[in-house]
Amino acid sequence: MLGGMWTGQKQGITDGEMDGQVDVVVVGAGYAGLAAALRLKDEGIDFVVLEASGRVGGRVLSEVREGGAVVDQGGQWVGPTQKNLLALAERFGCETFPSWEEGRHIEVWRDGSRVAYDGAAPEAGPGIDDYCRVTTLLDAMAKSVDLDQPWLTPDFELWDSQTAESFFRAQTGDEDAIRRLALAIQGVWSCEPREISLFHVVFYIAAADGYEQLMETRDCAQDSRFHGGAAAPATALAVELGDRLCLNTPVEAVEQDEQGAMVRTGSGVIRARRVVVALPPPATSGISFTPTLSISRRGWLAHSPMGRVAKVHAVYTQPFWRAAGLSGIATVYDDGPVGVVFDNSPADASMGILVGFVYGDRVSDWAERPAAERRAAVLETLAAIAGPQATDPVDYTEKIWPYDEFAQGGYEAYVTPGGWTGYARDGWRTPSGVIHWAGTETAGRWNGYIDGAIGSGYRAADEVLAAMVDAR
Amino acid sequence: MLGGMWTGQKQGITDGEMDGQVDVVVVGAGYAGLAAALRLKDEGIDFVVLEASGRVGGRVLSEVREGGAVVDQGGQWVGPTQKNLLALAERFGCETFPSWEEGRHIEVWRDGSRVAYDGAAPEAGPGIDDYCRVTTLLDAMAKSVDLDQPWLTPDFELWDSQTAESFFRAQTGDEDAIRRLALAIQGVWSCEPREISLFHVVFYIAAADGYEQLMETRDCAQDSRFHGGAAAPATALAVELGDRLCLNTPVEAVEQDEQGAMVRTGSGVIRARRVVVALPPPATSGISFTPTLSISRRGWLAHSPMGRVAKVHAVYTQPFWRAAGLSGIATVYDDGPVGVVFDNSPADASMGILVGFVYGDRVSDWAERPAAERRAAVLETLAAIAGPQATDPVDYTEKIWPYDEFAQGGYEAYVTPGGWTGYARDGWRTPSGVIHWAGTETAGRWNGYIDGAIGSGYRAADEVLAAMVDAR
Repeated sequence: MLGGMWTGQKQGITDGEMDGQVDVVVVGAGYAGLAAALRLKDEGIDFVVLEASGRVGGRVLSEVREGGAVVDQGGQWVGPTQKNLLALAERFGCETFPSWEEGRHIEVWRDGSRVAYDGAAPEAGPGIDDYCRVTTLLDAMAKSVDLDQPWLTPDFELWDSQTAESFFRAQTGDEDAIRRLALAIQGVWSCEPREISLFHVVFYIAAADGYEQLMETRDCAQDSRFHGGAAAPATALAVELGDRLCLNTPVEAVEQDEQGAMVRTGSGVIRARRVVVALPPPATSGISFTPTLSISRRGWLAHSPMGRVAKVHAVYTQPFWRAAGLSGIATVYDDGPVGVVFDNSPADASMGILVGFVYGDRVSDWAERPAAERRAAVLETLAAIAGPQATDPVDYTEKIWPYDEFAQGGYEAYVTPGGWTGYARDGWRTPSGVIHWAGTETAGRWNGYIDGAIGSGYRAADEVLAAMVDAR
Repeated sequence: MLGGMWTGQKQGITDGEMDGQVDVVVVGAGYAGLAAALRLKDEGIDFVVLEASGRVGGRVLSEVREGGAVVDQGGQWVGPTQKNLLALAERFGCETFPSWEEGRHIEVWRDGSRVAYDGAAPEAGPGIDDYCRVTTLLDAMAKSVDLDQPWLTPDFELWDSQTAESFFRAQTGDEDAIRRLALAIQGVWSCEPREISLFHVVFYIAAADGYEQLMETRDCAQDSRFHGGAAAPATALAVELGDRLCLNTPVEAVEQDEQGAMVRTGSGVIRARRVVVALPPPATSGISFTPTLSISRRGWLAHSPMGRVAKVHAVYTQPFWRAAGLSGIATVYDDGPVGVVFDNSPADASMGILVGFVYGDRVSDWAERPAAERRAAVLETLAAIAGPQATDPVDYTEKIWPYDEFAQGGYEAYVTPGGWTGYARDGWRTPSGVIHWAGTETAGRWNGYIDGAIGSGYRAADEVLAAMVDAR
């Protein structure tokens, strides 16, 4: 059997020989690929998973720091309607705990002034009325979306032909409301409102079952976190896959023929009847496909740039802000790098951890500055929202996702205007011959989330299973 | 010396050894890379050009058909203000002749009805008034563009935050005018109005010095053609480069270090002080860069999808439409694949050739249909605008650019909304260390045209020359 889990060593694969044969090759060991593999395993199908990097989890990356802090450098939360992720966690005995949200939240306005508020969202403040009116409208629009065949949505082309920015400016002239809407776009899609298709925004809201689900904590997408980090279920799943998982094995080419496909890697060639490709869109372009993918599939990928986000963690001996009645949750509209802050301390509060998100335009400039400047700029904001002690963490770490060799950005790819209309019918997730497409970007439920990734993996595996039954 | 022109054989390069050293490696032998190389040669600099395909010219591809017809499958025209291309043609003794435009032009409206008209553009017809009003407005907007530093344009961000479609719909409710505007976008940018940044449209008009230059024939961008095809100057230039040009040599990696860069190919490694990358944006993603390109550069590329266009030529024993008083020029708004037709006969009219353009959405569906259906659909349109004899050509050829292995689309990359604002300042053509960027997409004059490609090559070579002087 092909293998070498964790080590990247391949058994039975030698360079240039056709030395492996399986029913299914799964490309990518993020949650999508892992879920596809798990379903194939459960169904008794012969498969192998090829992962380019040296770990599993993809855009979920839980790191244990010196000193014991667990930081989630990537996806981290789970909400009560994210049934795929919750079930997977339960299967592997991974436990969750509620995200911290007790205390007053802070809003830092663009002049640097700070306002503390209770409850999920501020009830007053500059631009709040128009912000609420526009987001209520988005929610109403989302109710018309066909999640399975989005092109059947009544206003599909109209909404896909404009940017979110165009829509916002048509709805309000209040620049403060525009700022709030922009931070919401940055926070959910890691891009700027001028870059993203309005239809994609509306579709994505629908895929989460409402705007509140995307934005809020309790009972929503940010409800809970994982003991040991959000990669814990992925790691447990990887152990179950055993030697069917090959790390450090980037796929170079997928060549289809009448028998299925040849999957070429630097360390060998594997013949498969079916292939599941479970990669972020930019990583797909590193694979040479024969025959060439359809114009629709390639057009879809070309209209799916990755978001830009960095996550920054500052670790303290304790969550000192809690004693001051603060939640550690903040939204920041000033000129600093950080847009949103959460309390990412462990469940037992044995240490204090703040996580800051740097989004969109703010990433590009900040990421190119010297490390000391980057850190100082972040800690200045943390001090403004948690207190002066925040400038002196015991540990500090950054994950700048656009520099990640494999994901090339984060959280996920968004769709630029016209991408849905021009390419989705045949290019969103329609199989390309014996190649089946997974990845959170192909999900119709919780698109962009871990839960959507898992669901996409199951869907792709089900497509494979159905095709293999048909072929009998 | 490294070499092997035309044959792809490499002399002095053996696998895996560091076996070449030059001052400058130029990647790509389209007009941009060739122009860069020519300037370096003229200045006595030691260089080599590495081209992935087996020919020069890139998105310009002149093919001699059995029977002797020369067809330009890619870029084909030259206009009087395209001084870079005209001067290059003159240097290599390549002659031009006026594009044919005598006779009445045809407009096929969406109900299939045909209208013949004289002059450059129809003076009446559905939607014509609003079409003219909007394009006059675009022209006025273009006058404010800063071509060298586009981000200094007063309404830069406002225009870049919306699609051309949003702008058109804000200007007119006349669906026929919208159809005319859409065909104009398809014809110039090979995409749909919903996909492209309004700023990119305005910038591009400015780079051509006005909308009329883009659209019209006489004294404009479509003024003249080349005897022997538009690749003739490229071929002559390639001969002059001799063994400094390596065909069939795709670059796999560019690794920068303190001495410059190592350029890795499948057949050897070349050390260079400077590198000029002169590729279409999607081809850039096939190269592994160390260090990773900046977020801005990668973001710019990710917001620069290639246009979708196919060129179709039908060859006849004579240009029979001329005797009927027709020019062979047509614009087509019906449901067929072809949007625009021109008379592409040779200067001596020794045979008759019609060229049809299939753009944007129309390409994706048409290209996937069986060859016989594709041909029949095209010939039906040609018969409607040139006469029933058009259904029986002596030769018929298609070039579907999205299937081109190297260009992956055509004519060029356009910019999606927000691409200019978020990424251009540092990502449009700012050198990345010792890497200099050429290609028509980096041009400030005649962006998207052969002329812009040549100018971009000269500019990149000048950057290299200046840097090498500074380093002394």
